[in-house]
Amino acid sequence: MNNYEYCVPTDIRFGEGQIECLRKEIGKYGRRVLLVYGGGSIMRTGLYDKVYEVLEDYDIFELPGIEPNPKLSSVKKGADFCKANKIDVVLAVGGGSVIDASKHIACATFYDGDPWDLVLNKKLVTKALPIFVVLTISATGSEMNPGAVISNEATKEKLEINHPLLYPTLSVCDPTYMYTLPTKQTAAGTADIFSHILEQYFQPNDGAYITDRLSEAALKTCIKYGPIAIANPDDYEARSNLMWTGSIALNHLFTFGKGGAWSVHPIEHELSAFYDLTHGVGLAILTPAWMRYVLCDVTVKRFAMYARNVWDVEEADDYYAAVAGIDLTERFFKDMGLPGTLSEVGINDSQFVEMASEAVRTSGLSTRAYVKLYASDVEQIYRDCL
Amino acid sequence: MNNYEYCVPTDIRFGEGQIECLRKEIGKYGRRVLLVYGGGSIMRTGLYDKVYEVLEDYDIFELPGIEPNPKLSSVKKGADFCKANKIDVVLAVGGGSVIDASKHIACATFYDGDPWDLVLNKKLVTKALPIFVVLTISATGSEMNPGAVISNEATKEKLEINHPLLYPTLSVCDPTYMYTLPTKQTAAGTADIFSHILEQYFQPNDGAYITDRLSEAALKTCIKYGPIAIANPDDYEARSNLMWTGSIALNHLFTFGKGGAWSVHPIEHELSAFYDLTHGVGLAILTPAWMRYVLCDVTVKRFAMYARNVWDVEEADDYYAAVAGIDLTERFFKDMGLPGTLSEVGINDSQFVEMASEAVRTSGLSTRAYVKLYASDVEQIYRDCL
Repeated sequence: MNNYEYCVPTDIRFGEGQIECLRKEIGKYGRRVLLVYGGGSIMRTGLYDKVYEVLEDYDIFELPGIEPNPKLSSVKKGADFCKANKIDVVLAVGGGSVIDASKHIACATFYDGDPWDLVLNKKLVTKALPIFVVLTISATGSEMNPGAVISNEATKEKLEINHPLLYPTLSVCDPTYMYTLPTKQTAAGTADIFSHILEQYFQPNDGAYITDRLSEAALKTCIKYGPIAIANPDDYEARSNLMWTGSIALNHLFTFGKGGAWSVHPIEHELSAFYDLTHGVGLAILTPAWMRYVLCDVTVKRFAMYARNVWDVEEADDYYAAVAGIDLTERFFKDMGLPGTLSEVGINDSQFVEMASEAVRTSGLSTRAYVKLYASDVEQIYRDCL
Repeated sequence: MNNYEYCVPTDIRFGEGQIECLRKEIGKYGRRVLLVYGGGSIMRTGLYDKVYEVLEDYDIFELPGIEPNPKLSSVKKGADFCKANKIDVVLAVGGGSVIDASKHIACATFYDGDPWDLVLNKKLVTKALPIFVVLTISATGSEMNPGAVISNEATKEKLEINHPLLYPTLSVCDPTYMYTLPTKQTAAGTADIFSHILEQYFQPNDGAYITDRLSEAALKTCIKYGPIAIANPDDYEARSNLMWTGSIALNHLFTFGKGGAWSVHPIEHELSAFYDLTHGVGLAILTPAWMRYVLCDVTVKRFAMYARNVWDVEEADDYYAAVAGIDLTERFFKDMGLPGTLSEVGINDSQFVEMASEAVRTSGLSTRAYVKLYASDVEQIYRDCL
């Protein structure tokens, strides 16, 4: 196992009705709260009213309209508001985009320059407002980690800011809030969780046995409960297992003692940046294509282990087992109703060259990935998805 | 899944050489350090000298001689010393006993009465010194949780104090420190880890699928690496996998969404309290006997699941699968050289009645255990181990 530092201080309040704890917990940090949310879904579900009920003794200010791939302009707006109005706490009510925007706002509040500077140089992050979360969709794991992905409209960059100060102070994870999710979002969220685990699982270190086995446990949970949550949106067991799996999928538990650059995420980020594609949809399309592209002597043993331990493939030959695992992965995404090609989501090859170049430039693909990939490789993977 | 609160703020520094971080990290809290340790093993291994080298700029005071089942008298001595000498940080260098004593010292320093009061009423815990850890044996998981088990010599009670303030601030987990462990301690430590996972796994809640699968991953890790660490004490892969598994085995990850009173630990605690038996040895003797005693309609499905998922038992019948799982568990402990009976460790039936009564009185055995057990049941389990 590689040396590793692990510290996840977020207070998780998991289960139905846990939102009540905010009444008391937020008060430890102040009374002036910036409520950050996305579209109108939290109004339709009644969660918006519930937040106001629970926080009846607080001064609530609002930043609505956070985009699915949160934009730098929203962060600027939020940080300016926090500075001008002496906000004590940022409360994110939503999914990964809302939480990510809230994290960036929380630290940009204490920075006088362009918030994008903090993305480019995390040493400039010196302080952050406490971040509280009410999670409405399981996907990014942002409720229990210190990362935030922000899109810069001007430069078309989609980059991550990551700093220990950005761990949420407390996250309310109530599985019943996912009952009303559209099928597509449940499927995309599950694909996102699945991909997070795979990105960490598909790394060269073979000595972190415990981490590999824990990862397989989480992958199996996605496979079991993704389809159930789609068939029965108010199945508490399915929603709760997916919700907790989503949180631990990206809090470093599955990369403990391992490490290395991710592969599919940077390739996908360009799809989101150029076409505003839903992140989980892009991952579902790209993952099997990436696996096929990098299947070789370096990867075959681990891909076969994945097929056997996660999918119960009984094939003795490593190569055939690996291929069976890839096919089952592809089928898993399709069975959840996710698109299988870029053509299905209206993306053609017109920007592949630029996207591939950007993917390599802004990531560790060509330097630290499981199989190193250059722009021509990434372009081919995009083409394989047409 | 049951509602659950999860917050584990301990900063884990895992891997060879991580002790160097103490040079800087302890300084964030002060310069006056109480070094708590056990017998002379850290002198023989050179770790004692290493601590002094790393903390050359600090004022170090010492509390040596912490017992294998740490005694209240040691805690009193330590707390009195901290009060009198304005200690800033407690540094535990050792295993669970040393860490547990340090935790109790850390909070007793801020309490004017008898430290045992804090064990009996955790509301009296209001503040604690920062606790730093250098772990030398993987077993209790105390390096990453808020619990401490202390023995009261006067009352012959062995009870737990548990409070969020008792999470270690930072724990150095360097697998190479386990290279010099005697075989018996490696075996007992592995049995302790294994038992911690089983206590959480053998609970009635079937809806926490992710938690059950994660637990199985950790159990498999013990089975794989316990024997390797015994055969090759300086196998880094084995030591590192066991070390991290030991930490997460008892930081609530494997009880997330579940819960209920433990069974084997309270029965074992009386063995330690009455005979000063090594905790892991007692657990190894008792666990198969407890499983056989409670094997019934309530437990058979879960015991069979354990046998199949952890031990790859292929038996279709639940009852026979469960029995095979119990037999394999017993053999696992024996193969690591652990005693299989109480007679082997010189314990006879002379105090079984009193011990059984105490085990039930001081635990949730008769109220919240997987299978409720009364004094007569516990006495019979002791007898089954003769």
